[in-house]
Amino acid sequence: MAEPFSFSLMDACSSTRARRGQFTTPHGTADTPAFMPVGTAATVKGLSPAQVKETGSEVLLANTYHLALRPGDDVVRDLGGLHPFMQWDGPILTDSGGYQVFSLCELTDVDDDGVTFRNHIDGKYLRLTPERAMEIQMNLGSDIIMVFDECLPHDATADAVRRSVHERTLPWGERCLELHPRDGRALFGISQGGLHPDLRAEHLEAIRDSAFDGFAIGGLSVGETTTAFREIVALSTALMPGDKPRYLMGVGSVPEIVDAVALGIDMFDCVLPSRNARNGEGLSFAGTVRLKNSRYTRDDRVIDETCPCATCKGGFTRAYLRHLVMAKELLGASLMTLHNLTFMQRLMGGLREALAEARFPEWREATLATWGDGRV
Amino acid sequence: MAEPFSFSLMDACSSTRARRGQFTTPHGTADTPAFMPVGTAATVKGLSPAQVKETGSEVLLANTYHLALRPGDDVVRDLGGLHPFMQWDGPILTDSGGYQVFSLCELTDVDDDGVTFRNHIDGKYLRLTPERAMEIQMNLGSDIIMVFDECLPHDATADAVRRSVHERTLPWGERCLELHPRDGRALFGISQGGLHPDLRAEHLEAIRDSAFDGFAIGGLSVGETTTAFREIVALSTALMPGDKPRYLMGVGSVPEIVDAVALGIDMFDCVLPSRNARNGEGLSFAGTVRLKNSRYTRDDRVIDETCPCATCKGGFTRAYLRHLVMAKELLGASLMTLHNLTFMQRLMGGLREALAEARFPEWREATLATWGDGRV
Repeated sequence: MAEPFSFSLMDACSSTRARRGQFTTPHGTADTPAFMPVGTAATVKGLSPAQVKETGSEVLLANTYHLALRPGDDVVRDLGGLHPFMQWDGPILTDSGGYQVFSLCELTDVDDDGVTFRNHIDGKYLRLTPERAMEIQMNLGSDIIMVFDECLPHDATADAVRRSVHERTLPWGERCLELHPRDGRALFGISQGGLHPDLRAEHLEAIRDSAFDGFAIGGLSVGETTTAFREIVALSTALMPGDKPRYLMGVGSVPEIVDAVALGIDMFDCVLPSRNARNGEGLSFAGTVRLKNSRYTRDDRVIDETCPCATCKGGFTRAYLRHLVMAKELLGASLMTLHNLTFMQRLMGGLREALAEARFPEWREATLATWGDGRV
Repeated sequence: MAEPFSFSLMDACSSTRARRGQFTTPHGTADTPAFMPVGTAATVKGLSPAQVKETGSEVLLANTYHLALRPGDDVVRDLGGLHPFMQWDGPILTDSGGYQVFSLCELTDVDDDGVTFRNHIDGKYLRLTPERAMEIQMNLGSDIIMVFDECLPHDATADAVRRSVHERTLPWGERCLELHPRDGRALFGISQGGLHPDLRAEHLEAIRDSAFDGFAIGGLSVGETTTAFREIVALSTALMPGDKPRYLMGVGSVPEIVDAVALGIDMFDCVLPSRNARNGEGLSFAGTVRLKNSRYTRDDRVIDETCPCATCKGGFTRAYLRHLVMAKELLGASLMTLHNLTFMQRLMGGLREALAEARFPEWREATLATWGDGRV
């Protein structure tokens, strides 16, 4: 029988706010801190679900906005939901579409009820509301549903952010909560408030006692300074309930993830490891291997000799991978994505192990020594 | 120890010229009639070598022209040749670059010594001669080298074809033969002569006693009628030595392959099964499934229930594959190519089994009943 959503904590770092835990969903469990690969259109670009599993990934993110447009959430529903549709049997988190509507689309009307926009595929007018965002995510068969929120430009004034939080994101979150199916799947709230600590606090204080199963931070990683990033994350996790998972949306780079874990974050998603893979950037514990550099033309080493992925174990050299990337061959994208996601999961695995063995601070220092203290 | 090239025949059909055999190369054996997937740039587009092997493919074709341009045959040589470079340990046949130069490039000078052309990647002037084509293929570490031939437009006059055969392709083939390393790898001759039976015969009679390890037919599948196609293939195989493999270059569709096997051909290569895969056309024994047709939007069947490939066995439905193809997702190309190449190898396996069991005519009739008697 499918288990209902739950979250349990196993270890806590004594000198930072880092913590190790696990969440359970109707489609299995995932260890936290977790990195979720992005499967925008019901596929992690270039990898089969079996390959995604090989990377050590336990939970995927899929995009409400993209899937509602193509193939249509009604199509996915008629085929049994995302799990059978894409042949992924593990947990799936779906975003609410808010971020995509506000970042990809020409908006024609934003009112207190929802958003009308022209979609980026065929230009047709569509409308997204909290109710419709919930319906899409239910149709997709999501294990972790995200509330529909308003995402303002990052240079919005404090007044605009305050109005958005109080008149849109807060009531929209409540409308989503009313539709929470309580059938085992989770509904996460999203905190907004831009880079304004007071507004972040106001919003979180207003939602922290709501019946959400987890809490996310939206609107970060938009070009803010490392100091501002850390301040907002620290403030947010301090205000979030301790017994529910905390998800930092759209983050991020290795230093950002390590920073944010130290500040109490449990979940991440980011397109960078896979996007950079397609662009020929291989992640390794010795730094990034940028294959477009001609120095790799005859490099007969694999990306990372210590890596257990099929790309490195398979003997695919930097020279061959560089050739595939330069020739824009599909196999280059697949092999590099397989490697980069494996790297991310090894990173998270090492991080969780350090937490379990009460040596997170040392692990953090050693890891950041490779990557630099700031964000890259 | 690596075996030198050899070819042995096992079965011959009593009512057609079809035959079953096997060739041995320094990198292993392949059963004939054989279908060779095309790995233009040292990769079968979208598949890892392990996946190519999964399809049942035993021998690959790689392109001299493309690899000399990128990454450069000197680079491939320095990395040990194509086999370690692309991590394919089976036989590799390389074309000579002739076809690509004459079909893809702006030619600036064709003389009796060779061809000067602007390449299609960066527009630089390059020169290809029989000697250079041999050097490239040796650098690539090819198991089966093809002679450098002149490929004329298919509307060339009989006079132009005659001059080309006698003044270019014939002496170029002899120059390649002089450079034949005789180190275990094979060198195949290529017969030209357009759609002119007399010129085809002239050329084949001139080369049939040369020390080539196999003989190819070039310049077919250029839009000629089925009747002309069959006539040229029949005439050519009748003139080729019986104890050496016969290779019909760039062919083809299922009916063309079945036709040509009946006329005594042993080897084929074609980009169609993989190119069509990327375009959403799935091959099956019940016909072609064209996924771009909206009828497949909610089709929860796999492409072919009888197919053992990871796409069909993995439960990837026509609806999901259609979605991937419509969204131009990389995974669509991989899953479809895996299926189509598996189909081709099942086809060839069935064909060989029919030959082994002396029921090729019945098999042929049943297979063509699905595909139509002519070419599609």
